[in-house]
Amino acid sequence: MRRMKAHPAHTDATDWVAYRPDIKVLDCTVRDGGLCNDHKFDDTFVKRVYNTCVAAGVDYVELGYKSSRRLHKRDEFGLWKFCDEDDLRRIVGDKPAGPKIAIMADADRTDYKTDILPKSKSVIDCVRVACYINQVPTAIDMIKDAHDKGYETMMQLMAVSIVPEDEIKGALELTAKSPANGVYIVDSFGALYSEQVRKLTKMYLKAMAGTGKEVGFHGHNNLQLGFANTIEAIVAGANRVDATISGLGRGAGNCPMELILGFLHNPKYKLRPVLEACQDVFLPMSRDMDWGYSIPYAITGRLNRHPREAMAWRASKTPDDYITFYDKMHEEPG
Amino acid sequence: MRRMKAHPAHTDATDWVAYRPDIKVLDCTVRDGGLCNDHKFDDTFVKRVYNTCVAAGVDYVELGYKSSRRLHKRDEFGLWKFCDEDDLRRIVGDKPAGPKIAIMADADRTDYKTDILPKSKSVIDCVRVACYINQVPTAIDMIKDAHDKGYETMMQLMAVSIVPEDEIKGALELTAKSPANGVYIVDSFGALYSEQVRKLTKMYLKAMAGTGKEVGFHGHNNLQLGFANTIEAIVAGANRVDATISGLGRGAGNCPMELILGFLHNPKYKLRPVLEACQDVFLPMSRDMDWGYSIPYAITGRLNRHPREAMAWRASKTPDDYITFYDKMHEEPG
Repeated sequence: MRRMKAHPAHTDATDWVAYRPDIKVLDCTVRDGGLCNDHKFDDTFVKRVYNTCVAAGVDYVELGYKSSRRLHKRDEFGLWKFCDEDDLRRIVGDKPAGPKIAIMADADRTDYKTDILPKSKSVIDCVRVACYINQVPTAIDMIKDAHDKGYETMMQLMAVSIVPEDEIKGALELTAKSPANGVYIVDSFGALYSEQVRKLTKMYLKAMAGTGKEVGFHGHNNLQLGFANTIEAIVAGANRVDATISGLGRGAGNCPMELILGFLHNPKYKLRPVLEACQDVFLPMSRDMDWGYSIPYAITGRLNRHPREAMAWRASKTPDDYITFYDKMHEEPG
Repeated sequence: MRRMKAHPAHTDATDWVAYRPDIKVLDCTVRDGGLCNDHKFDDTFVKRVYNTCVAAGVDYVELGYKSSRRLHKRDEFGLWKFCDEDDLRRIVGDKPAGPKIAIMADADRTDYKTDILPKSKSVIDCVRVACYINQVPTAIDMIKDAHDKGYETMMQLMAVSIVPEDEIKGALELTAKSPANGVYIVDSFGALYSEQVRKLTKMYLKAMAGTGKEVGFHGHNNLQLGFANTIEAIVAGANRVDATISGLGRGAGNCPMELILGFLHNPKYKLRPVLEACQDVFLPMSRDMDWGYSIPYAITGRLNRHPREAMAWRASKTPDDYITFYDKMHEEPG
């Protein structure tokens, strides 16, 4: 199958102004952004994000995690760590007509057999199962469970920049045989360069060939490459991409929704409501909440390390002491 | 000639950890940054940038323009609009041993015959001639003049994202026949996507093939692609790249020096002095001076328009009224 490329600078002149209708955008502002504040968003904020996605024509909106109540104390986290059915319905109504509703379920942190209801009892459309490479069998079981309950499912293999190629291929083989509707390249550390994104996208597409499963990309902005890498994945053939309004997300944040919608040129997407939300909500919020590119994230990204030390540094009393952080990261093994 | 690729994700496993010694980095912090404040930097700042470049092992440092005194009133601009020999020497000494010293000369705005001294009387090593497509013949004359005086010269064809391909090719043909040592792809509007950068880089390389002239890239960060596009140019074969400390530069700024040095892996480059300058100088400066990505720049970048309206908007009393700016830009022809 020839995948029409997405955007400018193609040999075929019409591609300059065309778009690829099969690309679908998932907004994970509330889900990934929740990693910045223990998911403590109020209803006003979550409704605004949801309504913005409706107005912008975004295809999916992911509102949080389905975390185990046994493992996580309810009073330490906001509602969107758990995404109870009643909370979801308060935001999206009983029969949401806009974007599909997604939630994320972490391997080994979700009581999925009980907490993920049969589809007929839920407004959720899509369960995205997140796992590290050692959790793939658990994730596959979770995908089967959600699939059998009636959901669309996605495999989110995290931290792929530190997984040996053979193991990625093993995970992709298992995913190809599973009922998952697709698999995402998840650059958890924001450490991938564009060539690596192109290579991985081709590897994932090859592994999914003939299954009808989609390939997606979820980037982080540690090296100011969140948007750039998302474009590269699209050009290499990925059809699913994650973005967040104003790039809100853990650490250096994600691919900004306002940039990716502008790039895609699909007339169903509307940029203006996203810019309104940036202006009304996210810019004021950025004065009190630290997310987005800064040098500590560039340091962990370049070293291909988890951003946790950079996040702790940015939350410390010396967030802008780049040099001490740089020296610390270079003294400690990765 | 096979150009070894720059960096990760190559089929040849050794390329993952190799570097390309022929890549040279030019710091244009003072020159492009000067477009944010009419070149009114004090000596302390300029010396710090210069000394940082020395310590970081950067190959060239560009300190400003050689602007015509007839066309520009001296009291309206800082020293680095003119780069008088005495001013340069006060910063770099009489025999600078570190990076080569570059200045920029704008076509039609430089009294080059008189103001650019013979090389024997100047600490300047490299004259970069900037022009729009209609000024190419003037620029070629300026390049000949500077070459005859003993300088290395570079052709900087600006705003290439709005120049028809045939005209770019014409300019490249003239440049190939000129004594210029190289030619830069200059994305003045920060409007190019990576595929366009790859295509242009290949076009420029082809036009320079056999001449020994280098191809370079100068990006802007309107779409958060300043660093990403610089990498793409390198991977496609460009050997000269521009960067600025902390991305300081007109409007949305440039490719950050701290990111590109981290990418290049050449052991002669030292990242730590650049991070020190970011921490000590540029972070405090950013509280009083507006540069770097913001939504008005994303709007002009996406529309492939000059950032002047976005710069004016950011300097107005309503810099964060994105919606009014968006509507204004979409009502007015490009």
